Amino acid sequence: MDRLRGFFHPRGIAVFGSMTEGWFFGGAVVIKELQALGYEGAICPIHPTARTVYGLQVYPDISQVGAEVDLAVIATSCRAVPGILRACGEKGVKAAVVIADNFAEAGPEGEARQEELVAIAREYGIGVIGPNTLGIYKPHSALSTIPYEKGYHLPAARGGLSVITQTGMYGPQATPLNEYRFGVNCIIDLGNMCDIDEVDCLEHLENDPETTVIGIYMEHTRRPRAFLETARRVSAEKPVLCLKGGRSAAAARAMASHTGSIAGSDGLYDALFRQAGIVRVNDYEDLLGVAKAFLAQPLPRGNRLGIVSLTGAIGIQCIDIASQCGLVPGEIGASSRQELLELSPTLTGHPIDLGPASAVSGGDLFGYYERCFDILMADDGIDCIYLNTYISSYISTEVYGPVFEHMGQNLRKPVTMWAYGPSSEAVARLGDLAERHGIPFYPTTRRAVFALGYLAGYARWRDRVLTGSPC
Amino acid sequence: MDRLRGFFHPRGIAVFGSMTEGWFFGGAVVIKELQALGYEGAICPIHPTARTVYGLQVYPDISQVGAEVDLAVIATSCRAVPGILRACGEKGVKAAVVIADNFAEAGPEGEARQEELVAIAREYGIGVIGPNTLGIYKPHSALSTIPYEKGYHLPAARGGLSVITQTGMYGPQATPLNEYRFGVNCIIDLGNMCDIDEVDCLEHLENDPETTVIGIYMEHTRRPRAFLETARRVSAEKPVLCLKGGRSAAAARAMASHTGSIAGSDGLYDALFRQAGIVRVNDYEDLLGVAKAFLAQPLPRGNRLGIVSLTGAIGIQCIDIASQCGLVPGEIGASSRQELLELSPTLTGHPIDLGPASAVSGGDLFGYYERCFDILMADDGIDCIYLNTYISSYISTEVYGPVFEHMGQNLRKPVTMWAYGPSSEAVARLGDLAERHGIPFYPTTRRAVFALGYLAGYARWRDRVLTGSPC
Repeated sequence: MDRLRGFFHPRGIAVFGSMTEGWFFGGAVVIKELQALGYEGAICPIHPTARTVYGLQVYPDISQVGAEVDLAVIATSCRAVPGILRACGEKGVKAAVVIADNFAEAGPEGEARQEELVAIAREYGIGVIGPNTLGIYKPHSALSTIPYEKGYHLPAARGGLSVITQTGMYGPQATPLNEYRFGVNCIIDLGNMCDIDEVDCLEHLENDPETTVIGIYMEHTRRPRAFLETARRVSAEKPVLCLKGGRSAAAARAMASHTGSIAGSDGLYDALFRQAGIVRVNDYEDLLGVAKAFLAQPLPRGNRLGIVSLTGAIGIQCIDIASQCGLVPGEIGASSRQELLELSPTLTGHPIDLGPASAVSGGDLFGYYERCFDILMADDGIDCIYLNTYISSYISTEVYGPVFEHMGQNLRKPVTMWAYGPSSEAVARLGDLAERHGIPFYPTTRRAVFALGYLAGYARWRDRVLTGSPC
Repeated sequence: MDRLRGFFHPRGIAVFGSMTEGWFFGGAVVIKELQALGYEGAICPIHPTARTVYGLQVYPDISQVGAEVDLAVIATSCRAVPGILRACGEKGVKAAVVIADNFAEAGPEGEARQEELVAIAREYGIGVIGPNTLGIYKPHSALSTIPYEKGYHLPAARGGLSVITQTGMYGPQATPLNEYRFGVNCIIDLGNMCDIDEVDCLEHLENDPETTVIGIYMEHTRRPRAFLETARRVSAEKPVLCLKGGRSAAAARAMASHTGSIAGSDGLYDALFRQAGIVRVNDYEDLLGVAKAFLAQPLPRGNRLGIVSLTGAIGIQCIDIASQCGLVPGEIGASSRQELLELSPTLTGHPIDLGPASAVSGGDLFGYYERCFDILMADDGIDCIYLNTYISSYISTEVYGPVFEHMGQNLRKPVTMWAYGPSSEAVARLGDLAERHGIPFYPTTRRAVFALGYLAGYARWRDRVLTGSPC
């Protein structure tokens, strides 16, 4: 019973809203994006007075549309929504994305309006995403209902991440998805969640072969039991990450006016997430940042961290951070120590500090990286690896190419990376190069190490579930 | 008794080390940088075989130098250091930066070498920074001993931040100081800290009118009592931020091989920092990131946070984060609420959510920013303000210019900012613009809100000290 199917495979799409070309918000933006993505079904713009938009005929009313329409995108004023939804029902539309706001998030009047919307949807058997949403972004299936101009044309890289959210903040207009090397399958913004909810989405994504990692931004769930059961089942197959808005009581109060959400106690959510094997993250940025590691990396067999640092101070920081995310510094085995010693007498400690060996004349920094990486990959006492590197405009980014290529071809354990240097642009370029080779790159050591900690935490939960051990 | 004076006002500087032009490390790099900064005293390169470097005569031995030399920079092999230090003593040099490594950080042999170095320094009354250090960077006094090519020529912006560190990671070769709008006075890397320590530095910076904020990266202190007394006295005048390496026992062990540090229990350091009014930060990036807020912003009178957000979800995140750093969401006063209501009926909540008001046709986003900012600035229930904004390549960065200018001229309470959008480059440009107007800009909402939390925590400590209340 996949309630999302109609949204993702529409034979035709009716778009309601402003048809003013070039404006940053409205129906015309949706039309333009569907065209740019190469949507092959019928695109049917509906507006009472407009005649054409981006070369298409505009219909005054959906009843005039001849083509089969499965999906309606409604970006009008809230007052027009009931009439439009009814007309869609008469036309046989079974899925609607209601972008319009001023519903339950906007006080008692809006709540009444939302109830009316739900009643009409039920009457006609229309599934509704929203209201107060941006809807769906699934660029590689040529589908987008995002009503905001995003200012770039390349879609996000294709990949296994699907995000279920109660905010538009993960949409392509708010986030540089197109800059990420680790790709996106779809973003589903649920808005006020009057009908389709995160459980429906999980059920859809569970069977979607293109989805390998699921991220959720959630303010509340209406169906905690179904969410727990579904998420637990899905988590055993695909990692589910979750950012829960409103941990504090003060934030919970503020949520009521954001999406009309009524949150329960945060402790309950925490217990629910733990039982469901959900990876709970803490910040807006973490949902995508942590997903990046899950998308590209194998799961670690344990929580023993290997550290290769070009600087002693960050190696120490790294250990401090590890202790905050469930990792322990691994013990480097005797044969590895011997190999490191042969490489350089300064490379026998852990964290492996490449600084002293590289600073001496003839020190082969790039060779050291490759060898240290190989040694830790082969060492049974190490489950995951944090690396950092240095770059400046004095060094060409390309010199790291062969090293990263070698690493990328041998990622049998998860690896994350951070780099530093006197040019933030050079650091960004290096990060891009690392990610092209499948090594997740982070703006801070904390985030790089935490990503490994989340991987290890999930791997442990999953092992227990699969072996039937008590959690 | 300012033990640093000789280091900061040398009549002449002798530089020992490789004089190979164009190489990324060594004495020649120091020479080149001193010339680039316009150091006006005598620059005296010393090397047994080189003849000239960057247009200067190289002396085979310091005894041949005619000019008065107050500072020696020793970037040679560790084995050459004792002889050089002795020769410097004979010449009357009273300050030495020993860049050479392989001392106490490198096992028993290195420890013995460090003891010998200390004995010679005592014999001749030479103050020593290091060994295993990059020394001093004070670009606006034309002083630098950094032996690494940094790949850019513009010095850091001039400002009040002085950093005392036991890592080279805050030096201009590792950190894009020149990209920051909030300026640097000096960086002092203490390395193994065989002589000059953080207490000496605090005593120097206490009376340095150019220093308004002090950052410390510390692995250990040898003089906890003196550190407490000095830091407490300094903190009452100038905020002192500290990142302590080695919170965990595992990290403490690793420190021994980084700078030879032996750390005590982290709990002791925590108590010491609290008593001294030191702002304890958690990450490498925080030391500069938090300092940025202290440099530019007034101290808040309390911990009541005002939030202006363009997105509901981040407003909620913001409250969650506030509760983790000692802030509470402020209550917006009745007259402010009235003013906000007149602006738009959707602006009466807190966090102030600009999204709905801006999305409607005719919504004047930039006008709303300015008015909301003014209203919160005037509201007695708000002590500090977090703002976020949106930027895309569809919007010109410049449209924010007048808004930021207005804000920058009215910073009577601390303000921090974050922005989002589909282009990381556009976001970075917007951040730069905000900082040009004195508004500290952060890469995440967490860091923007925490900066305000640190300001509020310090302000409270300082109030208590100045009013004689018990801490």
